[in-house]
Formats: sequence, C-alpha cells, structure tokens
Amino acid sequence: MPVGTLASVKGVSQDVLEDLGVEILLSNTYHLFLRPGVETVRRMGGLHRFMSWDRAILTDSGGFQVFSLTDLRKVSEEGVAFRSHLDGSSHFLSPEKAMEAQIGLGADIIMAFDECTEYPADAARARASMELTVRWAERCKNYFEEHKHDVPWALKESAELRSAGRPRAAVPTRSEATQALFGIVQGGMDPELRRESADRTIDIGFPGYAIGGLSVGEPRELTREIVLSTLEHLPSDQPRYLMGVGTPDEIAQYAQSGVDMMDCVLPTRAARHGLLFTSGGKVSIKQARYAEDESALDPACDCRVCLRYSRAYLRHLYASNELLAQVLNTVHNLHFYLATMRTVRAWIRAGRAPAAGVSQM
Amino acid sequence: MPVGTLASVKGVSQDVLEDLGVEILLSNTYHLFLRPGVETVRRMGGLHRFMSWDRAILTDSGGFQVFSLTDLRKVSEEGVAFRSHLDGSSHFLSPEKAMEAQIGLGADIIMAFDECTEYPADAARARASMELTVRWAERCKNYFEEHKHDVPWALKESAELRSAGRPRAAVPTRSEATQALFGIVQGGMDPELRRESADRTIDIGFPGYAIGGLSVGEPRELTREIVLSTLEHLPSDQPRYLMGVGTPDEIAQYAQSGVDMMDCVLPTRAARHGLLFTSGGKVSIKQARYAEDESALDPACDCRVCLRYSRAYLRHLYASNELLAQVLNTVHNLHFYLATMRTVRAWIRAGRAPAAGVSQM
Repeated sequence: MPVGTLASVKGVSQDVLEDLGVEILLSNTYHLFLRPGVETVRRMGGLHRFMSWDRAILTDSGGFQVFSLTDLRKVSEEGVAFRSHLDGSSHFLSPEKAMEAQIGLGADIIMAFDECTEYPADAARARASMELTVRWAERCKNYFEEHKHDVPWALKESAELRSAGRPRAAVPTRSEATQALFGIVQGGMDPELRRESADRTIDIGFPGYAIGGLSVGEPRELTREIVLSTLEHLPSDQPRYLMGVGTPDEIAQYAQSGVDMMDCVLPTRAARHGLLFTSGGKVSIKQARYAEDESALDPACDCRVCLRYSRAYLRHLYASNELLAQVLNTVHNLHFYLATMRTVRAWIRAGRAPAAGVSQM
Repeated sequence: MPVGTLASVKGVSQDVLEDLGVEILLSNTYHLFLRPGVETVRRMGGLHRFMSWDRAILTDSGGFQVFSLTDLRKVSEEGVAFRSHLDGSSHFLSPEKAMEAQIGLGADIIMAFDECTEYPADAARARASMELTVRWAERCKNYFEEHKHDVPWALKESAELRSAGRPRAAVPTRSEATQALFGIVQGGMDPELRRESADRTIDIGFPGYAIGGLSVGEPRELTREIVLSTLEHLPSDQPRYLMGVGTPDEIAQYAQSGVDMMDCVLPTRAARHGLLFTSGGKVSIKQARYAEDESALDPACDCRVCLRYSRAYLRHLYASNELLAQVLNTVHNLHFYLATMRTVRAWIRAGRAPAAGVSQM
C-alpha cells in the first residue's frame, strides 16, 4: 500500500496511481485529523469522494503518529492527550475518538487504536502496553459496532451522490455497506507476549489482523523473527497486515511468509530524496556519475519514467531541485514496489519461491 | 509558450504537457548555462533529447535573466560579465557566447542576445541601449551563420540517434536542419526609437522578430501602446513574438492585434502560489471559503483537474503544502492558457473578434 498521508501520494495524481495499478492506499488519520479535519472530510462524503479515489483506502488509527511525532503526550487508560506537531494545539485520541475519526474519514479498512510499544521495553512494560492495546481493541470494536453505519457513504443514497454534480466514482452501490475494522497485535519483541496478544485480539474478533510495533528501531533480524512467529498465531484465511515494512526484498520475503498487506513510506520518501530502487540495486540519482548517463534509470523497468527519460535528465532535475524530480522519482519507485508485489503474487499462484533474490527480477 | 526554465515545466511531466496540447516550450539559456551546463546538454544531443520532448522549443538568449537576476554585472561593448545567482561564480555572456550556448542547447528557435533596457530610462540611455542591441544582433547573426551547423542534432545522422537506445522522438529527419534565430526589438518606451530598432533589426534580417524590454515595471497601458506601435513596423508574414506577456486577457488581446507568440511564467508561477485562472475570474485556492466547496475549480473547464477534483480537495492540498497542489494547479492554469489561445485562433480563423471579453469564454 503506497502511503498517501494527507489524502495524497506526494506529487502523484490519482490517474497516475490508477495507471500504476495501485489497488489500495494508506492514509494517516493523525494527519487528516489535524488537516483538513475529520469533519471536513466527512461532510465531503468521506476520503474516497474527497480525494476522488474509487479504489480501496486504509486508514491507520493515528496511534503510531501520536507516539512518534508528538511531544508532551500523556497516556492514560482513557486514551492519549497530545500536542499537534504543527502548531502545538492540544488534542485527545482514545479508542472511541480514533474510531469516530476513522468512521468519519470513511476508508474501507480502518485500524484499532493501539499503543505502539517503544523499543527497547522491559518485560513488565511490554506486557502492560500489550494489555492496554487489548483493552483498547475491545473498546474500538464496541464503538465501531455501535456506529459503523455512520460512515459517510453509508448515510447517503447512491442516487443522491450521483446527482450531486460531476461523476464521482466513489459511490457505494449498497447503502448498507460498512467498513472493516482490523485488530493490531502488539507485545514488543517477546514471541510469547505476541502469541498472547494475537490470541486475545482474535478472541475479540476482527475480519483482519495487523502486526504492529515493529520497525521501531530493533535489528532487522529481530523484526523478522517476531513477524514469523506472530504470523503462526494469526488465521491464514483472514488478511494479515504487517505495518510499516519495508524494502523491496523485505516485502517479497514477508509476502512469501504469509503476509497479505504491507505499507511503507520508503518508496515515496526515498524517491523524494533521490534514492531509487532498480533491478540492479539502489541508485542515488543525485550522484555526478549520472550527469551524462543516457541510459534508462532501470533498463529492465517498463514504467513511464524509465521508458521516457534518461538518468542524466533525472539527475539534472534532482540536482536542480526541480519539482518534477520528486514526481518522476516517486512514480518509478511506486512502480518498482508494485511490480515486486505482482511478481510475488505470480510466484505464489505458481506455488513456488523465486530462484534468485527478488531484487534481481 | 509555457516556461520550462530548467528543461522542465515545474511539476508537470512531458506526457501531461503533450496531453495538454503544448506545441512549444520556452527554456531559459541563463539557467541551463549554470545547471546542468550547455556542454552536458549538447553532449546529450540537445534539449529535445535531454528532456525527451519532440515538439518545439525556444530558448531565450539569457540576456533578460542576466539583467534581472544577477548582481555585480558589468556591461561592455563586448558583452556582460556577471555573477551567478546560485553561487556567485563569475561568468561572461556576449552575443557570440549566447549563440554558442543556444546552438549547443539546440532549441528550434533561438534568440539574439540583447540588452533589456531598464525602466525608466532617459532618452540618451534608451538610444544607447537600443543601438548596443542592434550591434549585438548583427554579431549574433554573424556567429550563428558561421556555426549553425554545430547544432547537436544536425551533427548526427538520424539512424545513429535512432539506434542509440530506446525510442526518442526528437530525431530530426534531415541532418541539414538548423535552428531559427530571431531578432529582438528594443528602444524603451519611445515609439520612434522602437521603430528605428525594428527597421535596423529587419535590415540585419531574421526569420522572426521579438518585442523585448516590456513588462519591466511600466504601466500596462504603456506596454500596450508600445506593442501596438512596434507591431506596425514588423513584417506580418513573419512570426512576431512578444516576450514576457501576460494575463489571459492580455494574451488574447495581443494575439488579436497580430502577436503570434508569447511566453509568460504567470500561469505556472501563479499556480504554485495557489492563484488559478478560471472562466469566472481568478481564484485564490488557499482561501478558507473553499474548504468545503465540492464544485469543480472551473465548471466550464474540461481539464483533467476540473473533471476530477473539487475545490475543497485543491484547497486542502494547497493549505497542507502538498506537492500535488503545485502539480494540479499548474496543469489547470496551463490548460486555461492553452484553451484561451485555441479560442483566439478560432476567432482569427473565423475573421471576427469575440463578442464578450475573453475571460468570459
């Protein structure tokens, strides 16, 4: 899932995302909560209508950003008081508030409000944090079940939306449609705590489960160990979502290990810093060695950037701080990630693992 | 002509420019001279190949930027010594150097190196400056005639370019093709000096003529007066190019007065500042009044932005400083300008002036 933090994948228009084959976007509740505000999006009919995107959207709960972006936050049983990273204004998120926000935003998949356990955390802290997340998950589900028909696109009849003006694709065909709320497994770096978190979250009952609290500073091998052991405790007939991962190699490996969904800012953020993923490895396009390199960024790539532009041009755009550098770099990296996942799906359908590393495909 | 200062229309990819119907781009010699440097572009086969743009390109001479962007410049009969606005490095441009640079860049139309007379200028200063421009125009033509076959795409055979790798459209079909060098009329705000400048520039002989030295701070009415009087002295069977103009109304009016070509940063620069041109007048999309406005930016516009997105979304993107704001705003403003010119062409073909103001079309 490409990340569209503020209801936009930075620099890439929705028609290009469609052409790239993006099937689902992630958008960040925390950021949308601050700008433009949930009420605005809700009154505009929800995220799909607001950003004119008729494919799937997932919103996170805001929990991760509250823990990673804000100062002066205070966690209590009730929720988290925090100050905006933008203007220092005071806000409060709780399981109920996070549900209310995500119902108002109206994504297809929404996430339980969890506490992202910091790394490192001692055993007592990891347990307490995991148990808080379980209690919050229950409150999330309760609130969601009571309010799920408040989702903006469930409130209006299709005909009303269709007559509201220009064609908008994001019109649900059934007004009884609701969102899917996923639970999140925490438990720090302790496989046993992770197992308990998984069991207790499954007991609450969700249509899909995420593995949270990883990629928070721990070594990559530890991430992998925790992911693999946690996956065993999650139902394989429901979506399993690994949050915040990862490099092209990692997403290919995790997908083959049974992870169904992943999100990461890496392809888009790296692109804006001139770091490009190619079949021949990473390319830092700012380097002077590319200044007169007439070859395609990735000769094996069939994205619109590689088919049209040279490394020399991409290097010039980046070195000159041209807006188009960020646009084209992002398009290429997204294409590379999506192509990686398409290859992995083909492998899975064919029932075999790749012969060589995914980065060589 | 949309402006693509550094071989890129800021934020808009070449395929979108093609879809918009852009037939010719302006690129700035001064900026390309500094980054990536003329030699790099020349070795990459010229601007068309470098930026993968097979439609027409015009480069200015660098004179206007030297006079408007640089400090510590020193004008002599020979040329202009100046310091880069980027790093303070010392450079020198003369008629010959400007021709050498523009031949190396390889645009289809290149411009004589002129002195852009400042406003206000007294009679003696305006005459001296105009006469310098005439002498420089002669040197430009002499250099160009001697070196015009050095243009990068004239040096190589089509077949060689075609076999050099991926398909690049910018392959001339005849290796004897050369560029067109246009002369520039100066003369400050004195119609008589302008007439003399036009006559003496025509005596040198160019395939097209530009009116320079306007939009330099003078009142709009004075601009119009000078344009109209100067046009009378320029051959109507050759392109007449008014540099650095203007608003949609102005370009429509000047086109109907006989101007064939114009360039302006206004549509693209204003877009990046959230100022959008519409059939209902200017829209400052940053305003809070648009925060929940579900209507199209311009309901009468059929650009991809107006067909897909709401004012509310565009306002959100701008207010949140999202890259996509600059991309979408630029696409719309370019479309508006190009649609304006298409309408004017239709009027001209039909042999009539518009019944209402062009901004109401």
